[in-house]
Amino acid sequence: MQTDIEPTLTPDTLVNSRFLRACHRRPVDATPVWLMRQAGRYMTEYRELREKYTILEIIKTPELACEVTMQPINAFDLDAAIIFADILPPLEGMGLELEFVKGEGPIIHNPVRSAADVNSLRVPPPQEALSFTLEAIKLTRAELDNRSIPLIGFSGAPFTLASYAVEGGSSKNRLHLKGLMLGDPAAWHNLMTKLSDVAGQYLLAQAQAGAQVLQLFDSWVGDLSPDDYRQFVMPYSQRAIEIAKQSGVPVIHFGTNTNGMLDLIRDAGGDIIGVDWRIRLQDAWHILGDNVAIQGNLDPVALFAPWDALKEHVQLVLDSVKGRPGHIFNLGHGILPNTPVDNVKRLVDFVHEYTSK
Amino acid sequence: MQTDIEPTLTPDTLVNSRFLRACHRRPVDATPVWLMRQAGRYMTEYRELREKYTILEIIKTPELACEVTMQPINAFDLDAAIIFADILPPLEGMGLELEFVKGEGPIIHNPVRSAADVNSLRVPPPQEALSFTLEAIKLTRAELDNRSIPLIGFSGAPFTLASYAVEGGSSKNRLHLKGLMLGDPAAWHNLMTKLSDVAGQYLLAQAQAGAQVLQLFDSWVGDLSPDDYRQFVMPYSQRAIEIAKQSGVPVIHFGTNTNGMLDLIRDAGGDIIGVDWRIRLQDAWHILGDNVAIQGNLDPVALFAPWDALKEHVQLVLDSVKGRPGHIFNLGHGILPNTPVDNVKRLVDFVHEYTSK
Repeated sequence: MQTDIEPTLTPDTLVNSRFLRACHRRPVDATPVWLMRQAGRYMTEYRELREKYTILEIIKTPELACEVTMQPINAFDLDAAIIFADILPPLEGMGLELEFVKGEGPIIHNPVRSAADVNSLRVPPPQEALSFTLEAIKLTRAELDNRSIPLIGFSGAPFTLASYAVEGGSSKNRLHLKGLMLGDPAAWHNLMTKLSDVAGQYLLAQAQAGAQVLQLFDSWVGDLSPDDYRQFVMPYSQRAIEIAKQSGVPVIHFGTNTNGMLDLIRDAGGDIIGVDWRIRLQDAWHILGDNVAIQGNLDPVALFAPWDALKEHVQLVLDSVKGRPGHIFNLGHGILPNTPVDNVKRLVDFVHEYTSK
Repeated sequence: MQTDIEPTLTPDTLVNSRFLRACHRRPVDATPVWLMRQAGRYMTEYRELREKYTILEIIKTPELACEVTMQPINAFDLDAAIIFADILPPLEGMGLELEFVKGEGPIIHNPVRSAADVNSLRVPPPQEALSFTLEAIKLTRAELDNRSIPLIGFSGAPFTLASYAVEGGSSKNRLHLKGLMLGDPAAWHNLMTKLSDVAGQYLLAQAQAGAQVLQLFDSWVGDLSPDDYRQFVMPYSQRAIEIAKQSGVPVIHFGTNTNGMLDLIRDAGGDIIGVDWRIRLQDAWHILGDNVAIQGNLDPVALFAPWDALKEHVQLVLDSVKGRPGHIFNLGHGILPNTPVDNVKRLVDFVHEYTSK
């Protein structure tokens, strides 16, 4: 499916966006690059703002979310911005009590553990429950448009949302989550139907608010066997992506530890598949086939290495897919808190310099 | 390489061991089954003993290690025993101070962080540093021989040992470990040379003490990119396996999150490759090829499911490699602490019943 690029590009300048062109597997003047979590703790500007506001305060104040979204755009020559938000606020709208606890990460105070808990979850329209992020997208688009840099909207995928909703936070083995999935399939399917509606409608609303590309983050789906993924998760990721695709904008489908089931991830949908660093990029693309673009896949820890070692790692990624249109350079997962800023700058510049024609 | 089975089997009865036959990809009367960490916290007998002794006391007292090794053999119809030990005691012999801290897991009080730290590591012969486990193997062999159940010896692989040695415990992103690897390659190679000697010699000594199969656990190697694995780790896993193979006994090579680089894991060596549950077993075997047996790969969390759901999951694993000699049924990683014992018993019996000819 070689979709046409123009319908999704309103300002004429964006036709030449190398990021959007790569999303559509068109030839580019240089490989586009952005970094998952590119706005975040590794930047001084972000840490300064965090001394005054909590994460949720920043996310829920459109002006602050816009400001943080722009921080890495102002600091580095990135080819895309991603709206500053988090995958968890959609769960608040469903009735879950979310808190970011210092040192512990996100906590849900009333996790979903039973069919009754699932039944009581609401599915509010994103325009009501997540208006702050939609507003932040509008503000950020106004800032970005004179720079020809596209804006990415995103949502957690149904499984990853379910993981937080059911476990109540991070979890090593996801016993509650898989317990519900295998022990009460009816409740599970009810939960996943609600979550796929929430994720899909949220993505669609972000595109309607101005996001030009959407990313579905299924960060934890790699903990499933392929057969469990196919039976219990894939139909819901598919449903979320189908709703999002009503917008007409490209969808990036990202997961980690999915290298044993990339064919299923691809079949669930997405124009661009994001892969982690645990597979050679050309091997991943060989499995995924010609009908998708690919995003990745530097080990985030490589950014802590001396520049020469980092450069070699970046070259290996770029060389492995050289000359094939449709590669978006990124990390294999989010950038880490203490990443040296100098290396980020050199990385972004090097990707352009090394691949420019 | 279709190796001959007989030289490694001293008691005649063991020629009919379905576990050993499967290791050599010979036809079996039923699929053999054992479970990683089969002696452990999910068993009442083990928890009772742990009220009186620490983990290290059990490991270092051959009679207790033998007793714990035998607990699951007495409780279930398992096809192999694995000596009760841990992957970390070899680091003590090298000069590292190991402690198991309640609730936190293993801690190394003097982690390896520099070239000087690496230089000061000793490589003592296992007969000196790990005599307790070698003695436990001798005692356990005496117990097992009248039951025709083979005994597995094991070691952590160089990378996984390095991870604990350098990080000083568990670690999410392994910044210190990869920092040493990418920042000081000379120190890294020195460290990995020492660790491959330690692991290889330890495995060889276990075979000489009576272990009939050896397993190399590279639990954390899946955090590496394939290119980093090939350059910084593979030669050392290869070296450890080559030393172990001097014994003539089959070697199982196990890792998790390695599904993007199974070809490299195979090329590093091993007669049997252990895979996690994140890939269909037949897909893994397709990548691995005909010259190795395969071990795996049920999601350990499936053991918490109601029996019907668990049974379906076991059937999927067994059906996917039906009729192909060389499958050893196991979990995709170690059995978890609160696993229901009834499900373990039913699982083991069902594997035999469902596959018996």
